[in-house]
Amino acid sequence: MLLAELSWPAVNALPRDMPVIMPIAALEQHGPHLPLFTDSFLVGEVARRTNEALGDRVLLAPVTWLGNSHHHLDFAGTMTAAPRVYLDMLRTMIDCVLHHGFKRIVLLNGHGGNSVPGQQVLYEVRQHHRDRDDLLLLLANYWALGSDPAQSIPGLRHRIEHACQWETSMMMRLRPDLIGDYKSAAKFEWGNPFQPATRAWTMPDVSPEGHVGEPALATAEIGEALLQTFAGDVAAFLNRVIAWGGRSWNG
Amino acid sequence: MLLAELSWPAVNALPRDMPVIMPIAALEQHGPHLPLFTDSFLVGEVARRTNEALGDRVLLAPVTWLGNSHHHLDFAGTMTAAPRVYLDMLRTMIDCVLHHGFKRIVLLNGHGGNSVPGQQVLYEVRQHHRDRDDLLLLLANYWALGSDPAQSIPGLRHRIEHACQWETSMMMRLRPDLIGDYKSAAKFEWGNPFQPATRAWTMPDVSPEGHVGEPALATAEIGEALLQTFAGDVAAFLNRVIAWGGRSWNG
Amino acid sequence: MLLAELSWPAVNALPRDMPVIMPIAALEQHGPHLPLFTDSFLVGEVARRTNEALGDRVLLAPVTWLGNSHHHLDFAGTMTAAPRVYLDMLRTMIDCVLHHGFKRIVLLNGHGGNSVPGQQVLYEVRQHHRDRDDLLLLLANYWALGSDPAQSIPGLRHRIEHACQWETSMMMRLRPDLIGDYKSAAKFEWGNPFQPATRAWTMPDVSPEGHVGEPALATAEIGEALLQTFAGDVAAFLNRVIAWGGRSWNG
Amino acid sequence: MLLAELSWPAVNALPRDMPVIMPIAALEQHGPHLPLFTDSFLVGEVARRTNEALGDRVLLAPVTWLGNSHHHLDFAGTMTAAPRVYLDMLRTMIDCVLHHGFKRIVLLNGHGGNSVPGQQVLYEVRQHHRDRDDLLLLLANYWALGSDPAQSIPGLRHRIEHACQWETSMMMRLRPDLIGDYKSAAKFEWGNPFQPATRAWTMPDVSPEGHVGEPALATAEIGEALLQTFAGDVAAFLNRVIAWGGRSWNG
Amino acid sequence: MLLAELSWPAVNALPRDMPVIMPIAALEQHGPHLPLFTDSFLVGEVARRTNEALGDRVLLAPVTWLGNSHHHLDFAGTMTAAPRVYLDMLRTMIDCVLHHGFKRIVLLNGHGGNSVPGQQVLYEVRQHHRDRDDLLLLLANYWALGSDPAQSIPGLRHRIEHACQWETSMMMRLRPDLIGDYKSAAKFEWGNPFQPATRAWTMPDVSPEGHVGEPALATAEIGEALLQTFAGDVAAFLNRVIAWGGRSWNG
Amino acid sequence: MLLAELSWPAVNALPRDMPVIMPIAALEQHGPHLPLFTDSFLVGEVARRTNEALGDRVLLAPVTWLGNSHHHLDFAGTMTAAPRVYLDMLRTMIDCVLHHGFKRIVLLNGHGGNSVPGQQVLYEVRQHHRDRDDLLLLLANYWALGSDPAQSIPGLRHRIEHACQWETSMMMRLRPDLIGDYKSAAKFEWGNPFQPATRAWTMPDVSPEGHVGEPALATAEIGEALLQTFAGDVAAFLNRVIAWGGRSWNG
Repeated sequence: MLLAELSWPAVNALPRDMPVIMPIAALEQHGPHLPLFTDSFLVGEVARRTNEALGDRVLLAPVTWLGNSHHHLDFAGTMTAAPRVYLDMLRTMIDCVLHHGFKRIVLLNGHGGNSVPGQQVLYEVRQHHRDRDDLLLLLANYWALGSDPAQSIPGLRHRIEHACQWETSMMMRLRPDLIGDYKSAAKFEWGNPFQPATRAWTMPDVSPEGHVGEPALATAEIGEALLQTFAGDVAAFLNRVIAWGGRSWNG
Repeated sequence: MLLAELSWPAVNALPRDMPVIMPIAALEQHGPHLPLFTDSFLVGEVARRTNEALGDRVLLAPVTWLGNSHHHLDFAGTMTAAPRVYLDMLRTMIDCVLHHGFKRIVLLNGHGGNSVPGQQVLYEVRQHHRDRDDLLLLLANYWALGSDPAQSIPGLRHRIEHACQWETSMMMRLRPDLIGDYKSAAKFEWGNPFQPATRAWTMPDVSPEGHVGEPALATAEIGEALLQTFAGDVAAFLNRVIAWGGRSWNG
Repeated sequence: MLLAELSWPAVNALPRDMPVIMPIAALEQHGPHLPLFTDSFLVGEVARRTNEALGDRVLLAPVTWLGNSHHHLDFAGTMTAAPRVYLDMLRTMIDCVLHHGFKRIVLLNGHGGNSVPGQQVLYEVRQHHRDRDDLLLLLANYWALGSDPAQSIPGLRHRIEHACQWETSMMMRLRPDLIGDYKSAAKFEWGNPFQPATRAWTMPDVSPEGHVGEPALATAEIGEALLQTFAGDVAAFLNRVIAWGGRSWNG
Repeated sequence: MLLAELSWPAVNALPRDMPVIMPIAALEQHGPHLPLFTDSFLVGEVARRTNEALGDRVLLAPVTWLGNSHHHLDFAGTMTAAPRVYLDMLRTMIDCVLHHGFKRIVLLNGHGGNSVPGQQVLYEVRQHHRDRDDLLLLLANYWALGSDPAQSIPGLRHRIEHACQWETSMMMRLRPDLIGDYKSAAKFEWGNPFQPATRAWTMPDVSPEGHVGEPALATAEIGEALLQTFAGDVAAFLNRVIAWGGRSWNG
Repeated sequence: MLLAELSWPAVNALPRDMPVIMPIAALEQHGPHLPLFTDSFLVGEVARRTNEALGDRVLLAPVTWLGNSHHHLDFAGTMTAAPRVYLDMLRTMIDCVLHHGFKRIVLLNGHGGNSVPGQQVLYEVRQHHRDRDDLLLLLANYWALGSDPAQSIPGLRHRIEHACQWETSMMMRLRPDLIGDYKSAAKFEWGNPFQPATRAWTMPDVSPEGHVGEPALATAEIGEALLQTFAGDVAAFLNRVIAWGGRSWNG
Repeated sequence: MLLAELSWPAVNALPRDMPVIMPIAALEQHGPHLPLFTDSFLVGEVARRTNEALGDRVLLAPVTWLGNSHHHLDFAGTMTAAPRVYLDMLRTMIDCVLHHGFKRIVLLNGHGGNSVPGQQVLYEVRQHHRDRDDLLLLLANYWALGSDPAQSIPGLRHRIEHACQWETSMMMRLRPDLIGDYKSAAKFEWGNPFQPATRAWTMPDVSPEGHVGEPALATAEIGEALLQTFAGDVAAFLNRVIAWGGRSWNG
């Protein structure tokens, strides 16, 4: 169900153990060939397909397109919340959902840079309500819920990256009118030689063009296959959320 | 132009005196008959029409649907930024636009509750950049840019209110599929007996159903007339912004 | 009654539905001819006259002279709270008054720049105490409570501005010893060509001398007439506050 | 010179090595017999006498009556900044004075509770401007600048306390019309058995009536003697500030 | 080198491309059988061994024992920074190191709960200094730098957990005098049925005794083997940090 | 008892009127001849001796070595919390101790710069829990609890200063391996000509070498005598804390 389209009495009538899905994304540069809204388009499409599949069993909020994208700020057009503002923003939205009595909250994430702050905020919320045992607070990256498309889709590089073959393919399927000259986009590898330690970075450290990976390998067919895979994964994951017993950790 | 659909090189190529329009709205209860996204739908439609009219002369950001709606939080489904978070959120978005070198910023507001915090933030931004003389920082309520539709549209009540005849009419034009039983919605008057002093309030002070005014008087024809009026006003206003000399206060 | 002059048992004995009047003003530049304390002097005088008229029916706090005046900071001597500090300062004072059990609070404002932050703070306080229905939180600009002196006082310009004919006249009545060469003060018009949109500004945008309007037209007679008008308006307004039923919005 | 009474060009013409005196006080309960404004009245009077003595050599700001008085909040009428707000408030005022180019700043304190936060803020300001060597940032308690009145004034208790013999005496000299039944005020001793360790306290820990010491021993003669002593001490201290070389620590 | 034991001229003489290692840990409950300081003891020992191995090539700060442990606060004795305070604390320490001109900073983490906030802070620092290309900001969990001890040490469970076999074993090697009755500690499995989504939790969700895993399987021999493995991994990792070219991302 | 070495059930079994001692210190430059950790070493040693003397009657937290040392930041190696972060850090630690039910808290301070912020925080905590009468919140500088060693120890200068004869002597007793060429350290006097007013300063104002006083006069014998004196003072003070009645201010 689409939260945006409901009236307040309609929301009020919903069972409070219905999962609330909050897609979070970004408006940030995506290389020379993809639009700034790429992450928002993609998580929006995955959420749309999932919502269709799950019918009236989940409550889907609109995409929060302002993300945690300071590392892309050197590229024109990027709009981002400052890091602490992003924490506050996620927190204040979750507080509203809890205020209305919902107990199962899923941040459905469409932008890698939102993952750490999203986890930080869920941590804060859980501790703030430390005496409750009926809360299920989850963050899920839509591209990382189990399937490994690189195994099943021919011609696919090994992993999703920023404005890469994967994202370009999905955008070709979704909004082909907005695709620029992806064939000319150079190949950039995101390699952190200090792994598995994490390293702080800003996009120009890695790529002067703003993308990583090999956009030139994208096709709309790959895009559709990816969208199907991800929407399927998210639906399966949300079914587990729906099936949760409501109390115990392991339930 | 739609910021969301541009690539970063495309944004980078834009003249920096192009006005950047940031529609701000809300996801908040709108009585028993209108969807939570009403303000976002409406300012989005006004912005869409305006953008169409102005072609490549303005840069339109996506609607910021999370608004300053704490006064509606008692009604299920309302999502709102806490007051200070809303200030920070507007501030951080404006900072991005300035970071990219744009100088003319218009908060195109679609929700009454955003007006005071929007002014507060523009004040803060102006003072922070006190030494600059090339900034034009504006907040415009789309419904209050000159025309008085109550004079020109037959059957229209004297002013816009919350989930009222005006807003219901526009939603009937825009998304008739989302309109509930507006005919049964009671009449509530927002009357502050202490005017012209301003008074702090929360929605249940005024209306237990969540709307103000007389939704029952709405028609799709009124809605279209209002949308045309407002889109025309916004376009005229933005033409003045485009025509600004770029320096002097009175210019 | 003057809060400053009471002992705590005397305050403790007061009925808690007595309105608490908190005059807020500024210490900021007022052109080449008026003292920095102008706004504080004026709202203090209006409050003093009102308090005299209303006897023991209101509780008057001292003037909070530190205001929201960052837009005047380029002129020497201006002291101002940074914007967020001003919000915090108003908030903390109101919290005290509520802590002591008072329910009717009037920010009696003597400086235009305090109006937006004052409204922001009252909003925050109202939402923080959203479950109460016995609070009356008001902000009143002393010069804008009903009368239009430009209609009744001969020779008066159309509206109050900063360090203008109106303010200069009142200061001539109140503290003639502090008036500089107002006759030589140039005429500056505050004209925002983007009205009714609001526009962020800083004083040097408008006037290099720091005042707006035509101080040269001031007379002490006009000043006394204005003070009488404003004190009368404030008293009438406060009588409505005193007469409030104590619960309902429209009461 | 009184900052409040100057125009901005007059302030602008002042030498920037003139000391700026910022009296800080409180509006807080002072026992059953003294008015809430006691600290503000007293530091205001000391400052007034000092200013008279020093003529045009210091710039005196108005009394900041909102103080750090949370420990008195249980008594009706007390208005206080929350602790961090008080820090911010002092900081923002000092920032203004520095913004205008003044270099010698004296917080002239009239309320014990302001001493720790005042030192905290001066520390913060000094570190923020760590590269400057031309700043003189001082906090002086008006009652503790050298003289020991208990040695010279007959009948005087050993030290100043809250709403005590000393303060009551000075108020009898200054505003006898505001003195309540000080003869009946009980004797309370502020004794911290853990001294010289500092101990956090709130006023009801010490005195249910809100005062400490023996108000009943007050006389107007003692009050005048104290005011003369303190005003003399402050003037002597400020002469040292005026005489400072402007650079070196020991100068 | 131990920062704590150096004088300031000694630090001043160091090359600024020397890595600064900041061990971060916790003082939090570790089940019924381990001391609160377990994480601090362990990362301290790993750091000590590493420092010994690397001689004068790294600068080792003392262990920051106050960690991000709100999820353990229900157990007596746990001391923790509130989540945002922890962010500020890490940030302020890193700011000092940068202030002194060092460029390679390693948060050597000994507590799982510090990982997300540590990454958040490094992100913030990197963006704050976005224009620099000479910074290397890393967070390394000492137990996760490459080796998989479960493969090489007989009898070892599959992974490190909280107050588990691994940590108990290392503490048996390090401070056998502080080990309680680990043989009676029950077995608890940390299983998040919503993986790979992350889920917010608080310790009592998982284990009423405060530990996870099987402490009863611990031995001092396993402990020594683990410490050798981890100290070796950290040294190898730091050698890569030392060998970094100083500029490029991939260098 | 050492908090760090206890398990949570052991802490849980403690009586909640046991004093919790939190040593706070610094990692900051201490002249050319002493290590950065001097304050932490010294308060740690005083605390260790005291804990030994008092056996199981106090609960001793580990030394918080990150202090309020911004005034030493110009000297390499100093690590310090920014001023407000230091307030937050102390506050969050005290909150934990209160959360676990302890009521007597002693900040045992080993660094002069922590004194004002420590008092500020205890004030904030006391006011936050204003309705409780069972809290004892104390800050004690270990060197200022009664004895005047300058009277009893031959050859001792009149007071403790920074990296001075006193501190150098104690370090010679404690860690002679870390003492640099103290004989060559120049003599610097910390003299504030504006006393008894407090004055904001930063270390280079006073001493280019980073120490104050006469380190050259230090001996290990003086050091041992000082440590005995201070440990004795702290133990006597803590015995008073243990003996406190638990309720009344004067008790």
